[in-house]
Amino acid sequence: MTPDWLAVDWGTSHLRVWLMGPDGAVLDQRRSDRGMGHLSRDQFEPALLALVGDALPDGGTVPVIVCGMAGSRQGWAEAPYATVPCAPPSIGAAVAVTTADPRLSVFIVPGIKQVSPPDVMRGEETQIAGFLVDDPGFDGVLCLPGTHCKWVHISAGEVVSFRTFMTGELFALLEQASVLRHSVKGGDWEADAFASAVEDAMSRPATVAAELFSIRAAALLEGVGPGPSRARLSGLLIGLELAGARPYWLGQDIRVVGAGGIAAAYHDALAAQGASVATVTGDGMALRGLRTAYETLREAAQ
Amino acid sequence: MTPDWLAVDWGTSHLRVWLMGPDGAVLDQRRSDRGMGHLSRDQFEPALLALVGDALPDGGTVPVIVCGMAGSRQGWAEAPYATVPCAPPSIGAAVAVTTADPRLSVFIVPGIKQVSPPDVMRGEETQIAGFLVDDPGFDGVLCLPGTHCKWVHISAGEVVSFRTFMTGELFALLEQASVLRHSVKGGDWEADAFASAVEDAMSRPATVAAELFSIRAAALLEGVGPGPSRARLSGLLIGLELAGARPYWLGQDIRVVGAGGIAAAYHDALAAQGASVATVTGDGMALRGLRTAYETLREAAQ
Repeated sequence: MTPDWLAVDWGTSHLRVWLMGPDGAVLDQRRSDRGMGHLSRDQFEPALLALVGDALPDGGTVPVIVCGMAGSRQGWAEAPYATVPCAPPSIGAAVAVTTADPRLSVFIVPGIKQVSPPDVMRGEETQIAGFLVDDPGFDGVLCLPGTHCKWVHISAGEVVSFRTFMTGELFALLEQASVLRHSVKGGDWEADAFASAVEDAMSRPATVAAELFSIRAAALLEGVGPGPSRARLSGLLIGLELAGARPYWLGQDIRVVGAGGIAAAYHDALAAQGASVATVTGDGMALRGLRTAYETLREAAQ
Repeated sequence: MTPDWLAVDWGTSHLRVWLMGPDGAVLDQRRSDRGMGHLSRDQFEPALLALVGDALPDGGTVPVIVCGMAGSRQGWAEAPYATVPCAPPSIGAAVAVTTADPRLSVFIVPGIKQVSPPDVMRGEETQIAGFLVDDPGFDGVLCLPGTHCKWVHISAGEVVSFRTFMTGELFALLEQASVLRHSVKGGDWEADAFASAVEDAMSRPATVAAELFSIRAAALLEGVGPGPSRARLSGLLIGLELAGARPYWLGQDIRVVGAGGIAAAYHDALAAQGASVATVTGDGMALRGLRTAYETLREAAQ
């Protein structure tokens, strides 16, 4: 079955494509690890064709709506940022990309920037657009965990301000490449170790770089196992983030947008602070945002 | 010329040997990258012989005094930690290692541990011993920058307490392997960018994980160059550390033990806080500690 259009989330490390049928139905979805970080400008079209070229109709043209890092300066084509305060950029602000293959009609959705403090997002604005489809009157704060966790203040359908924390990337680097790697591999997650680490980092954020080394020392001296050690590593970094993001979440209605262990960790840590928090599964949020962009494009064409 | 003894500083990543003559003269020094992290237990003796075997006397036996990670559980032989409060461990606490080559008589000096908060050092205790040779009455705080920076409270010739910060390792990981790597390579050091970053992190330590991402965003949005970006990365991490180590240095007499840019950075940051600080070149400090150990050993043998 030939797709009506393609929804594409093209991040730094991964490429994800949904083949879309009539009425927003998903005919198929495909993934590859040919993220923007691995590609030069002229490799984007071949990478996309390698993944979905077999599904494209002969003689027809398929709209391709792209969000994420493919729109960065080092990406497929630069889609200049919208600036806060602003609604998530509509398809009207997208950049049309000329392709060699006539079957593709590519549009890249812009990201959002903030001048002070300097900050940027690419991809999350489309998740936010998807979130607002379901809850257009939401007034509060979105927390989008990931490699670079975003805290986003939403009001009246607009992104008012946002802040990015490198927590996920710090965790990955420390878990895999630091001296702590000897102490945090394997074992089961320990919720108590996580909770007390969040508490420690929130009450004394400045000592985090020392508390990190103490994970190693406690493993050596007290035989603390990898399960509680890894939970403590996560808790220290998320606690540091929650302390820094307090102006965002304190007294606000919070939605953690995500799934799995990482979303649960943020949810639990916020709930332990007495915050008003709910988790909204992030899976499909980007797709919903891309679908809205496509529908707007189609209506404009009619 | 045949050495009287060998002084060895065997860390995680490097092996450093001084060939010592009469009256503490250094005949030669040699280095290799065969650090403890790359070796299994039975590879230590061959690694040492590969580096200095040619200089050993036929038929004689040469004392070898070793400090550092070679004494860890994964090292050549475990030299159990001394526990604070304590003087830097003397040669009497060293572990004698049996070797296949009869020309070697190896002693590994123990490290120091602290139960609460859990912390360990291996190698720095010998630098501290060397420092105390020159300044036996020192009462104050040593700051030993490095991959894992140590803050050490010294009084009456003893290590009273200490704390390790992972600042150097965090800097290396973020500089080389994180998204910031695109923004911090090349350019000249900018002292102003460093100083303002230290100030920012000390006054708002909790926001460091967000300020780190802002380095990337400021490079993208404002064209901030790699020189000031790298200085800001360093300043944020050192500022976080100084905020966490404040109970160590506030109101104390401080000696930064080290050399080069990293020692200067700590010195400048502390001086900007109005702290009483001097820098003592760390080069030779470990050697001085090892020499004291050897002299004690020789006197005991007489």
